Amino acid sequence: MHNVFHLAIPARDLDETYDFYVTKLGCKLARRYADRITLDFFGDQVVCHLSNDYATEPKMYPRHFGITFKDKLSFDNLYKLAKQREIPFFEDMGRRFEGLIEEHLTFFLIDPSNNLLEFKYYFDDRMMY
Amino acid sequence: MHNVFHLAIPARDLDETYDFYVTKLGCKLARRYADRITLDFFGDQVVCHLSNDYATEPKMYPRHFGITFKDKLSFDNLYKLAKQREIPFFEDMGRRFEGLIEEHLTFFLIDPSNNLLEFKYYFDDRMMY
Amino acid sequence: MHNVFHLAIPARDLDETYDFYVTKLGCKLARRYADRITLDFFGDQVVCHLSNDYATEPKMYPRHFGITFKDKLSFDNLYKLAKQREIPFFEDMGRRFEGLIEEHLTFFLIDPSNNLLEFKYYFDDRMMY
Amino acid sequence: MHNVFHLAIPARDLDETYDFYVTKLGCKLARRYADRITLDFFGDQVVCHLSNDYATEPKMYPRHFGITFKDKLSFDNLYKLAKQREIPFFEDMGRRFEGLIEEHLTFFLIDPSNNLLEFKYYFDDRMMY
Amino acid sequence: MHNVFHLAIPARDLDETYDFYVTKLGCKLARRYADRITLDFFGDQVVCHLSNDYATEPKMYPRHFGITFKDKLSFDNLYKLAKQREIPFFEDMGRRFEGLIEEHLTFFLIDPSNNLLEFKYYFDDRMMY
Amino acid sequence: MHNVFHLAIPARDLDETYDFYVTKLGCKLARRYADRITLDFFGDQVVCHLSNDYATEPKMYPRHFGITFKDKLSFDNLYKLAKQREIPFFEDMGRRFEGLIEEHLTFFLIDPSNNLLEFKYYFDDRMMY
Amino acid sequence: MHNVFHLAIPARDLDETYDFYVTKLGCKLARRYADRITLDFFGDQVVCHLSNDYATEPKMYPRHFGITFKDKLSFDNLYKLAKQREIPFFEDMGRRFEGLIEEHLTFFLIDPSNNLLEFKYYFDDRMMY
Amino acid sequence: MHNVFHLAIPARDLDETYDFYVTKLGCKLARRYADRITLDFFGDQVVCHLSNDYATEPKMYPRHFGITFKDKLSFDNLYKLAKQREIPFFEDMGRRFEGLIEEHLTFFLIDPSNNLLEFKYYFDDRMMY
Repeated sequence: MHNVFHLAIPARDLDETYDFYVTKLGCKLARRYADRITLDFFGDQVVCHLSNDYATEPKMYPRHFGITFKDKLSFDNLYKLAKQREIPFFEDMGRRFEGLIEEHLTFFLIDPSNNLLEFKYYFDDRMMY
Repeated sequence: MHNVFHLAIPARDLDETYDFYVTKLGCKLARRYADRITLDFFGDQVVCHLSNDYATEPKMYPRHFGITFKDKLSFDNLYKLAKQREIPFFEDMGRRFEGLIEEHLTFFLIDPSNNLLEFKYYFDDRMMY
Repeated sequence: MHNVFHLAIPARDLDETYDFYVTKLGCKLARRYADRITLDFFGDQVVCHLSNDYATEPKMYPRHFGITFKDKLSFDNLYKLAKQREIPFFEDMGRRFEGLIEEHLTFFLIDPSNNLLEFKYYFDDRMMY
Repeated sequence: MHNVFHLAIPARDLDETYDFYVTKLGCKLARRYADRITLDFFGDQVVCHLSNDYATEPKMYPRHFGITFKDKLSFDNLYKLAKQREIPFFEDMGRRFEGLIEEHLTFFLIDPSNNLLEFKYYFDDRMMY
Repeated sequence: MHNVFHLAIPARDLDETYDFYVTKLGCKLARRYADRITLDFFGDQVVCHLSNDYATEPKMYPRHFGITFKDKLSFDNLYKLAKQREIPFFEDMGRRFEGLIEEHLTFFLIDPSNNLLEFKYYFDDRMMY
Repeated sequence: MHNVFHLAIPARDLDETYDFYVTKLGCKLARRYADRITLDFFGDQVVCHLSNDYATEPKMYPRHFGITFKDKLSFDNLYKLAKQREIPFFEDMGRRFEGLIEEHLTFFLIDPSNNLLEFKYYFDDRMMY
Repeated sequence: MHNVFHLAIPARDLDETYDFYVTKLGCKLARRYADRITLDFFGDQVVCHLSNDYATEPKMYPRHFGITFKDKLSFDNLYKLAKQREIPFFEDMGRRFEGLIEEHLTFFLIDPSNNLLEFKYYFDDRMMY
Repeated sequence: MHNVFHLAIPARDLDETYDFYVTKLGCKLARRYADRITLDFFGDQVVCHLSNDYATEPKMYPRHFGITFKDKLSFDNLYKLAKQREIPFFEDMGRRFEGLIEEHLTFFLIDPSNNLLEFKYYFDDRMMY
């Protein structure tokens, strides 16, 4: 299946959103309209809608999104990019479920509208779901 | 890339969430814990966290999620399933941007925690992003 | 070909079957009915039918099933999972045909209805058939 | 994943088993030993072990196996082959769950050791699991 | 091979270049710098460098670039987009080598810096090279 | 997408062009006509048109083309080939943006008509665009 | 598997061999040496060695080679090319095993060194082997 | 392309041919008729026709066939198999064009009808053609 996952999230301001996702995070801009930008976000689609309904502060649960990487090098490269370009972290790299089959690496970034992005790498790829 | 998109959303109750996503919508259950269920949602991952922080009524913007189908048959099959299994619609099938290159078919479903799911099909697959 | 292999096996009890295949072995639950559950078993389909016609004790021949892994890491991860989650082994990891081109690693698990599952890894992938 | 599903079944006699699977059903013979033959069965592996522990008469539940085809033409071609080469049917082509999303076509063949083979085609490929 | 073809071309002005390639032609913007923009151009990379060394008028030979589509629907969709969004044509849709095995459909667009883009569809895909 | 990128460039002489691209660089010749040769250039298409409109000396900007390799071994092999077969370099192997996420290896070759070819390898493959 | 089938055949003369395989049949030339040319023959490799050991007249058995096409359009396109470019046929298009599952279309071409090329299309793709 | 390369060769005797290709070399038997056997030969098709027109002694030029492996492990495994199962070599493992970009490993086997099989591995996979 070559379907595309589609996620709509709020954006406080489109310029800072563009700066965060395209210039810093390295996502590709697909389209820009007056009220939203659409992104090729690691192969899926994220649409940032201009909205006042954004979180006033970031909160991990129950809403966040991101990518679980199949390949550790891509995960490591993204972490390096986030550090180098000084993207704000909500939670720095951590290891969860150490020693268990569910063991994975994870870190959380904060976008300018307080949306949280989680990136993960599982040592057993069957645990990606 | 075989990365997996990861989305966490609130769930009011895990049994009704299971019933909605697995029994009705036909997603595969990957894991069930006391506080969440994880789903293989059309090849990506949706995690439903037990939470009181769910919307009291469904709202289209700025947050919703779903799948943009590459293949019209899969889109049509999902619509047929939703009708047959009487999944609640927030918005029934519609056609947007008729005659334009961005023309697409879309419908919105409501999950038991008032999360909105949008499913789309674009006639020009370059517009999927 | 993206066809799916389909195997029907007996299940003494659906709850313990669910627990074995989904919670322990990490297979995805596709559907559950009153008389059977259907599983996405490593990409193929296993259907467990509620039945009294199950083996009273496990026996290696002539009936068993499982996966021959292309990739050693996936095989090793499954073995680690089985040990960690204390899935009962019928036969622990062994090496067969040592030094020959048919050399492979193998172990056997027992499901709650005495069905035997064999998982294998061949050093020459042409021997997978 | 390019893993191979592996199924071991009993065979009353290897020559008639070879004749059924290779000459009639058109599977490829991978290996033949004194006590078993291994087959490339539509891309997965079936091993037929010489054994007295075969069913004295064919029975649909709880054990049978086969292929769920992604592509209707392949399914139709196999049905045509089975008819033309006079492979014994346990159940001729039928349509189950007519009008429902689970609707599928199915037929059952009998091998010389009374193992049952089921071949299916679902109109919604998400129901293949 | 998943290599990326890389082409550098001159751009008279980056804003009009962005408007042409991203807003009109629907290519994805990968990066924007002070002196160039980089594009995901139908899966390959085109880099538009700010430069005075652009053609004063468009000329078909010896330099142009574009995509030869494998799939006619994608080709037709692009033509429809170009007409609908009033992208300037250097040469409208034509058929070359009619009746011969090399027969193909082709049209030429002009970018704001007088670079010529050719899009083609061959009826025999072996002629794409 | 299995589309083919198509690039037309000037060639001063077809025999020396053939010698450069096919005999030395190892591209496959697809077709030869009186006024051009068409090449399978690393999976995409380059057409060399006989023309007087070639550059009198090579210049890096704003026009050059080449391949960004996904796989370092292929990149290294091409560099080795260029050295061994004494293809003229415009710029030997260099490292750009050292320590940054955009870090990559690059070298430039000169074809007999002063077209410049750039070959690159990025350590983070998201930077290939 | 992306292995390449490799076939070496005799060639009476390299220029006429080049003309037959590249100019007429549309294969890509990979390399040319004094004593042989190597071809990308529909994705596999054919090497034509200058040799006196060629057949004095074409004979169908026991030696010939060619492609069995998965896709009927590619087969039809090749037949059209052969007719249009007046490639000599040893046997024009025929249908074998009509009505049987092995039914296929086939035609034979003759190269300048009396090597025979057979191209086939099976209606049931399992019969391609 | 998923086309299949098709090669017909002479066989002095079908039983010894079966023994060589299936039992020893590990190819899959697709079909056996009175006058020929058809093989899945590393993913392509070789048909062995019963014939008196076989070579009385093996000769490297101008006719031989085999596989050029993309992956060194598969090549090494095949060499190990040939040694272990005592398949007759016409030429043992050798290295050609040492130090050049065309450098490759190669060995030749002899089938019972004096057909020669060459297996190769190139260090630069662009040289496989």
